[in-house]
Amino acid sequence: MHRILIIGAGKSSTYLIDFLADSCSSKDRTLTLADLDPDLAKKRLKTRKNTFAKKLDIEDAENRRMLIQESDVVISMLPAMMHPMIAKDCLDLGRHFFSASYESKELRAMRSEIEQKGLLFLNECGLDPGIDHMSAMKIINEVKANGEEIISFKSFTGGLLAPESEDNPWKYKFTWNPRNVVLAGKGLSRYVEQSQLKYVPYHQLFRRIEKIQVDGIGNFDGYPNRDSLEYREIYGLLDIPTLLRGTLRREGFCKAWDVFVQLGMTDESLSLTRPAESSLREFLNSFLPFDPNRSVEEKLTSLIPEMDYETFEKIQWLGFFSDRKLPRTTGTPAEILQDILEIDWALDEDDRDMIVMQHLFEIKSQSGIRKLTSSLVCKGENSTYTAMAKTVGLPLAMAVDLFLDGKITAKGLRLPILAEIYDPILLRLEKEGIVFTEKTEEPPLRL
Amino acid sequence: MHRILIIGAGKSSTYLIDFLADSCSSKDRTLTLADLDPDLAKKRLKTRKNTFAKKLDIEDAENRRMLIQESDVVISMLPAMMHPMIAKDCLDLGRHFFSASYESKELRAMRSEIEQKGLLFLNECGLDPGIDHMSAMKIINEVKANGEEIISFKSFTGGLLAPESEDNPWKYKFTWNPRNVVLAGKGLSRYVEQSQLKYVPYHQLFRRIEKIQVDGIGNFDGYPNRDSLEYREIYGLLDIPTLLRGTLRREGFCKAWDVFVQLGMTDESLSLTRPAESSLREFLNSFLPFDPNRSVEEKLTSLIPEMDYETFEKIQWLGFFSDRKLPRTTGTPAEILQDILEIDWALDEDDRDMIVMQHLFEIKSQSGIRKLTSSLVCKGENSTYTAMAKTVGLPLAMAVDLFLDGKITAKGLRLPILAEIYDPILLRLEKEGIVFTEKTEEPPLRL
Repeated sequence: MHRILIIGAGKSSTYLIDFLADSCSSKDRTLTLADLDPDLAKKRLKTRKNTFAKKLDIEDAENRRMLIQESDVVISMLPAMMHPMIAKDCLDLGRHFFSASYESKELRAMRSEIEQKGLLFLNECGLDPGIDHMSAMKIINEVKANGEEIISFKSFTGGLLAPESEDNPWKYKFTWNPRNVVLAGKGLSRYVEQSQLKYVPYHQLFRRIEKIQVDGIGNFDGYPNRDSLEYREIYGLLDIPTLLRGTLRREGFCKAWDVFVQLGMTDESLSLTRPAESSLREFLNSFLPFDPNRSVEEKLTSLIPEMDYETFEKIQWLGFFSDRKLPRTTGTPAEILQDILEIDWALDEDDRDMIVMQHLFEIKSQSGIRKLTSSLVCKGENSTYTAMAKTVGLPLAMAVDLFLDGKITAKGLRLPILAEIYDPILLRLEKEGIVFTEKTEEPPLRL
Repeated sequence: MHRILIIGAGKSSTYLIDFLADSCSSKDRTLTLADLDPDLAKKRLKTRKNTFAKKLDIEDAENRRMLIQESDVVISMLPAMMHPMIAKDCLDLGRHFFSASYESKELRAMRSEIEQKGLLFLNECGLDPGIDHMSAMKIINEVKANGEEIISFKSFTGGLLAPESEDNPWKYKFTWNPRNVVLAGKGLSRYVEQSQLKYVPYHQLFRRIEKIQVDGIGNFDGYPNRDSLEYREIYGLLDIPTLLRGTLRREGFCKAWDVFVQLGMTDESLSLTRPAESSLREFLNSFLPFDPNRSVEEKLTSLIPEMDYETFEKIQWLGFFSDRKLPRTTGTPAEILQDILEIDWALDEDDRDMIVMQHLFEIKSQSGIRKLTSSLVCKGENSTYTAMAKTVGLPLAMAVDLFLDGKITAKGLRLPILAEIYDPILLRLEKEGIVFTEKTEEPPLRL
């Protein structure tokens, strides 16, 4: 009898919980779902056999460690910064640990002890990171096995709206943590292109875009996402001339978002106190140079010379030229902006989100250089059963299922870049409708 | 017999040490100068009567506290982050504390205890902060005493080069902490203009400039410096419609510095490892979009559409279009940039620096609105006896001298905004050649 513990019953856990709870009916295992809100946990589990809802205040170390002690594998669906605490408990108590988040410094510091104890700590087993690694590694290993060379790899992922739900000028709503969306891209991003190292500061990021085209659903903008160089080692592509990982937004989004970035409205370094009853128009004006002879619209257009009608319309649609009151008047600019957006970018009950992922490879062989494009499009059902929850939760659930069934034998601190992990998961994902479509552009024939 | 302790014998202490060491000949006091390098301390003191050089490793708490115990007033000339430690010792041991740095949160937390013990902790008594406060408060209090109202106060300060030493296209060299110059302006700056709150993010800061003109020495650019709003309370100008504090650079400097800001070359969030033997040209190229068909010069000009010949020349003069090797190949972009600049912007032995400060007031009275401009220009003698060391060190030295002579009676945590502090100091500074020149533009006569 295996005992699974999931910590966190939030929105992103729906598919994960369903998959593992269902497995408790057919396999010899139990599932405990722990959350601050035990009623939510109970609701998520329905009345499935061998499943238990428990209340857990994550700061209550005694209860937390007791629940971990009573399980064999622990899945943390908490915010990423809380993982090290859970992982440490797992290490102390000799339990396996799974997450969909980035492998952190704190986890890396535990590496040798994890190995010594014969445990598996598997991270980055969700969507991005997760499915991106698995689908990329499958192709990379196949190309290598053929004796061919990858000379360029660009990979883009976006958490977006299905076209039928794109009912605002931004063609965007929050389908994931709003704070992360507002702060996305801070710091310096880097990648390599034709062996030239490239660094992009935040205020250039949303201008450094590539046009990405996905059959059947149209055009997107891809901007560089953090440190692509790290993936040279992870993917075993140490000398690859071009490597870029990026984030997708619908065409035109980045140009309009860049207006907020240029203005400083995504700043989080200073807490402001705006006068009570301040309007969005006044808030916008406070980021514009003083000029008593020009309107807010004129000053904005003069500060952002690239402003076009589509961009202007997006800003206008959010109410920034209106006397609408700010939803909050204290906080950092980023916090105030987030609250404005959470009103206008809220997902309706029956909105469908959409995950888009595209890998673009250039592969050198004796016959020349061919281009291989591998694309994934996955649509959600509604605002609860989202494509985001599905693509984050299913790979993680499947990894735990395979591990408990003895089909994953790896131990230690791992990413899903091993064939014994990614092969069966990708196969199973296909059955759930998470399918990559490949397209190859062969090199011109040599006549 | 009063005992003075100065901690830190660095370049910025020269005038401070001379003034107080000289006073030990004529007044009943001793001066101890403590530094990690006792030979430097000895050299600075020369052989003046009642002066003592001591070795002090600031981390050696026992020795540090012993030196503080053996003195009546302590002047910290250490980097600002070390002041709280010294101040805490002074508080414990019941000693008065003086610094030229900003009053910190940590110091504010000691406020009531400082008062209880009847001690004086005087901060911000250098140039900026320091002379700026004193000269501003003198005018503000005079205007208020006349029953007039200040409706606008803009104040700019710059640590610059005397015109005769402006021998490079930037008309700039490091006359103060290079790291602070490279990182200046990070975060969100704010000010108020005609009652409109204004926020300026870093990447707009060097574009939000005012032209400042100083008789006899020409034109400068002033950009907003951090949080001007704080000074509404400090200066007793709570409802002032316009309040802006800014930093001065020679005309054209900001536009060229902004190129580095826009590129991301002042970033300090990520440590880079450049290939060995990298050139400045390659370093610049790594911040530009990839384009195999265009030169570095073309890509830069296209990324920075405002680029003009003067700006291009400044970048070129630093060697950024050349194959000159980087002075270091690892570190954050800001660290690499700083090392490049430290070579080209080093002060020559006989270079003269220059401090420029200008207050611009608009004063409303029954006869209309008059403009009052108060300007200070102070030139250094050479690279050791700098205007920076003089304007930072003399006010602090004079404050200590006045305090020991019983002419400053205030106690508690203070800034030099009290008349009993600023009046005698401003008078004495005039005798040392640190003189403000006032110019008034009267309102048009009503016919």
